[in-house]
Amino acid sequence: MPLSPEQLAEIEALRASPQPTLRAVAPGMEKHLYTAQEVLDHGFVRVVDYMGDDAAICQAARVSYGKGTKSVQNDKGLIRYLMRHWHSTPFEMCEVKLHVKLPVFVARQWIRHRTANVNEYSARYSILDREFYIPAPEHLAAQSVINNQGRGETLTGDEAARVLEILKSDANRAYDNYEAMMSDEGQQGLARELARMNLPSNIYTQWYWKVDLHNLFHFLRLRADSHAQYEIRVYADAIAKVVADWVPAAFGAFEDYRMGGANLSAQALDVIRRRLKGEEVTQENSGMAAREWREFVDMIEG
Amino acid sequence: MPLSPEQLAEIEALRASPQPTLRAVAPGMEKHLYTAQEVLDHGFVRVVDYMGDDAAICQAARVSYGKGTKSVQNDKGLIRYLMRHWHSTPFEMCEVKLHVKLPVFVARQWIRHRTANVNEYSARYSILDREFYIPAPEHLAAQSVINNQGRGETLTGDEAARVLEILKSDANRAYDNYEAMMSDEGQQGLARELARMNLPSNIYTQWYWKVDLHNLFHFLRLRADSHAQYEIRVYADAIAKVVADWVPAAFGAFEDYRMGGANLSAQALDVIRRRLKGEEVTQENSGMAAREWREFVDMIEG
Amino acid sequence: MPLSPEQLAEIEALRASPQPTLRAVAPGMEKHLYTAQEVLDHGFVRVVDYMGDDAAICQAARVSYGKGTKSVQNDKGLIRYLMRHWHSTPFEMCEVKLHVKLPVFVARQWIRHRTANVNEYSARYSILDREFYIPAPEHLAAQSVINNQGRGETLTGDEAARVLEILKSDANRAYDNYEAMMSDEGQQGLARELARMNLPSNIYTQWYWKVDLHNLFHFLRLRADSHAQYEIRVYADAIAKVVADWVPAAFGAFEDYRMGGANLSAQALDVIRRRLKGEEVTQENSGMAAREWREFVDMIEG
Amino acid sequence: MPLSPEQLAEIEALRASPQPTLRAVAPGMEKHLYTAQEVLDHGFVRVVDYMGDDAAICQAARVSYGKGTKSVQNDKGLIRYLMRHWHSTPFEMCEVKLHVKLPVFVARQWIRHRTANVNEYSARYSILDREFYIPAPEHLAAQSVINNQGRGETLTGDEAARVLEILKSDANRAYDNYEAMMSDEGQQGLARELARMNLPSNIYTQWYWKVDLHNLFHFLRLRADSHAQYEIRVYADAIAKVVADWVPAAFGAFEDYRMGGANLSAQALDVIRRRLKGEEVTQENSGMAAREWREFVDMIEG
Repeated sequence: MPLSPEQLAEIEALRASPQPTLRAVAPGMEKHLYTAQEVLDHGFVRVVDYMGDDAAICQAARVSYGKGTKSVQNDKGLIRYLMRHWHSTPFEMCEVKLHVKLPVFVARQWIRHRTANVNEYSARYSILDREFYIPAPEHLAAQSVINNQGRGETLTGDEAARVLEILKSDANRAYDNYEAMMSDEGQQGLARELARMNLPSNIYTQWYWKVDLHNLFHFLRLRADSHAQYEIRVYADAIAKVVADWVPAAFGAFEDYRMGGANLSAQALDVIRRRLKGEEVTQENSGMAAREWREFVDMIEG
Repeated sequence: MPLSPEQLAEIEALRASPQPTLRAVAPGMEKHLYTAQEVLDHGFVRVVDYMGDDAAICQAARVSYGKGTKSVQNDKGLIRYLMRHWHSTPFEMCEVKLHVKLPVFVARQWIRHRTANVNEYSARYSILDREFYIPAPEHLAAQSVINNQGRGETLTGDEAARVLEILKSDANRAYDNYEAMMSDEGQQGLARELARMNLPSNIYTQWYWKVDLHNLFHFLRLRADSHAQYEIRVYADAIAKVVADWVPAAFGAFEDYRMGGANLSAQALDVIRRRLKGEEVTQENSGMAAREWREFVDMIEG
Repeated sequence: MPLSPEQLAEIEALRASPQPTLRAVAPGMEKHLYTAQEVLDHGFVRVVDYMGDDAAICQAARVSYGKGTKSVQNDKGLIRYLMRHWHSTPFEMCEVKLHVKLPVFVARQWIRHRTANVNEYSARYSILDREFYIPAPEHLAAQSVINNQGRGETLTGDEAARVLEILKSDANRAYDNYEAMMSDEGQQGLARELARMNLPSNIYTQWYWKVDLHNLFHFLRLRADSHAQYEIRVYADAIAKVVADWVPAAFGAFEDYRMGGANLSAQALDVIRRRLKGEEVTQENSGMAAREWREFVDMIEG
Repeated sequence: MPLSPEQLAEIEALRASPQPTLRAVAPGMEKHLYTAQEVLDHGFVRVVDYMGDDAAICQAARVSYGKGTKSVQNDKGLIRYLMRHWHSTPFEMCEVKLHVKLPVFVARQWIRHRTANVNEYSARYSILDREFYIPAPEHLAAQSVINNQGRGETLTGDEAARVLEILKSDANRAYDNYEAMMSDEGQQGLARELARMNLPSNIYTQWYWKVDLHNLFHFLRLRADSHAQYEIRVYADAIAKVVADWVPAAFGAFEDYRMGGANLSAQALDVIRRRLKGEEVTQENSGMAAREWREFVDMIEG
């Protein structure tokens, strides 16, 4: 259960008192405000604030293109045009602020996306809670045998049990010692900023993360992708659902042109052109290396 | 008159229909929404959207510092502490989107601030209006005789008249020719993206500019400063007034610690310490070059 | 002639005295250092400094992926893998610093790429030279009749002559008046920061522009593209040639995966899959709007 | 001993074969290239590449300010002027690439500086080494009793011994279990991307970090400061020494205007002015809160 009774009461209070505003309001997003989407065993994502909606994207585009945008009949068409032609600045005009609770090793991947604002809970100032990510049995994956980066089959039986036991007992011992080192009962107590180094990276942290829609789409493209590690993908998936409610037209265009599409290399484009003309093309005469060819065939065959 | 009747009607319509929201609402900002602050002869600044308020800054800081922030008694004190100690990330949690109409030469200075989102009216797609910045007589300044960058006294008499006449007639001739080159009456008509090159840089453009509060403060510190060119400073001043209404505590801290304060070099700090102990210090024994010393004396004498 | 005799002598001097370094050296780039690629009528691009080479990209990737990269047989293969899978950070490990002279209206497009460092000649401090971009007759294009943004056929005859005459005479008059307003003979002289507003945007400016290879590729993808305005495309083309000599493997991968390839939408990918299975697909049953379908057919037919 | 014999041999090889270049060469930096500054018990910082020197800063400034910079007599004076007046873009024209080995909890602080390029060793692809930061006894600090964030006195005797024993044994047990979970002897072996979550944050990671000089100075101002955690400060101190050799004039200006100076608030400036005029000022009539007053008195008294 990621949320405490205090947190649930606070959310209820925040949701109880709407106020009038003259700003653009996205009804699909208002319903998400402050409520938590549960992710993993102790994590969550919740929307704390947002700016803009589908119409705000078009409004910004129309400042740029002036009367030129009249030819695009409606907002949805304009948004698809912008996405297709990589006009990214209108999407930057929407912004969202999320409160995320997540394991440290996930946070370390996440933070590589630099074009966002972050305020993370500080373990220099404060004491972390005893909450660790322990994978559900169905997510206890073996190392892939064909790929250095990647997961193979799910662990089973004794091996799975051993792993879970290790993760739990090591986490708890580390946390017991974290507390013991900081305790000032009968001793001085180690500084928090030092004691935290004993904690494993499946401990949960939390942060406020604020990002514009263009950079959020970039994050989602990489992290809601099947190659992303499962533990960050579930966060990306939860965010994607929220975005679909917030800016439905932009999210639809994103799905069609980014998530659901494909990038063709010059060689791949050439192979498609040749095959559509009836030519038989094999890896040998494709101009592609074996690995590229495999990836290409997978893509083309769906 | 910067705003057309259509624009005024649109603003009125936008301001007529408040909607309920669960987000943080800043009453001081709601009163500014969509209305235009007039700047220069045809320019304006108007707030199109905003995210967050003083409380949102504290909320983000409390995520970071957890129970550590309890020792700071109230929001205003916490905000002053954050500003004093250069904790910039909580201020990044507020965001504002402005619609600005401004001369091109001002836009070129403004855009050097890279940490913002911009959608500018495109003269490739659309035709610019016949609006040029012509300085008011009291802002027609001579080149400074002591400073390569800077203004001296105000031009007067015939010289002022000549300058105004040149600026007006060159702008109008350039615009007449801009239209003539693009015209498709009896000719093909030059492409807009080429014709625009004939226009002088006092022509007005407009853009949507979105920035977080931390970066906006940085902009204001440089551009609301007495060393900034007058024509950008008036925009910074107009924005500063809006920010004071939006986040009064943060703006107060910004004024005390950034705008109204001073940066001391190691040498300047040393001189102050010595003088407060009663020592007589001159430029010669200050460790400062002549120019630094002058700047220091100006600062210390107010 | 973009370069003065003084500049040519300075370049010769800079190229005359190689010094030993322990850093990575890219021979293909050393030959470009300081020399100017002429662009348009008075512009140029020249390499002032660079950091890294193809091997540096691989070195950074191998820090990231450790032993995992051993499976990729050689540097070229690794670089292609990184490009194909959007691993952008290794490309950020190379950096280049260019000195560019360019018309102001081109500079205004260029500066929208925010992830770069810029030092531009300041017309507040200094006086601009009398140099204006006047298009060559074959680049005097009419407005496109099918596209708000874009060029149609080349102007000819009297119309072309009129346009060239206007551009030249307006530029010269504006510059004469720029000088006249600033002159301190018999008058005070208008401040430079004000006088510059009279100058049209085909005047040349110059800057130092420093960017990492990943962001440079992004710039080239957008600006060396056939949809980019001709006057910025020639700069991108000149830079692309330099990059091909600097990091040949990375540039080859960029050409194959970015410039020469294509992005498929979900609908386009579906159409290709169906057509490869022998199905007849038309716009009507493609799921695409008319405009998208046209763009898709153009792409597929090359 | 942070460096293996293989690494030392590689460094020797890299340093053995200087090549000619036409680029700016900083002799003070060449001597550092590839060699490792040891930091903490297993960490290091080493320069992998650099771009520019003091002269490059001035060269960029002179592009910006043209003839205006002639009035500044020499490079050192110009650099001090730029630093004093917050002209940051010329400093962005220098760049450095470092290879850093550091504990994960230090890396987590470091990465908050977003304006840099990073390639970190990936524990998804590769297996981390058994190397953990264990504080030297003199750095085993107690929690500060006056400050939530901060260290008090050094732990001694039994308490110190207990802490060291805990840190060592927990780290080793976690690493033993990390290996045991991944082992494929008699079992499938847990995926690396999962097994890593068991490791504490004093394990060492490494990365390539590339940053421009302006942003590096910002990093140093915050992290070489006495308020920074000791474990990141030693890295900042090591880097500062390298920078002093690389760009001595810029580093001198940085020390005088940033590190060694002070920021005065409006109230503090006012108090200094009043005291220099002979007025007695106390906290009560200073306009400062108690905490600000204490910080001010500390600063003024040195």
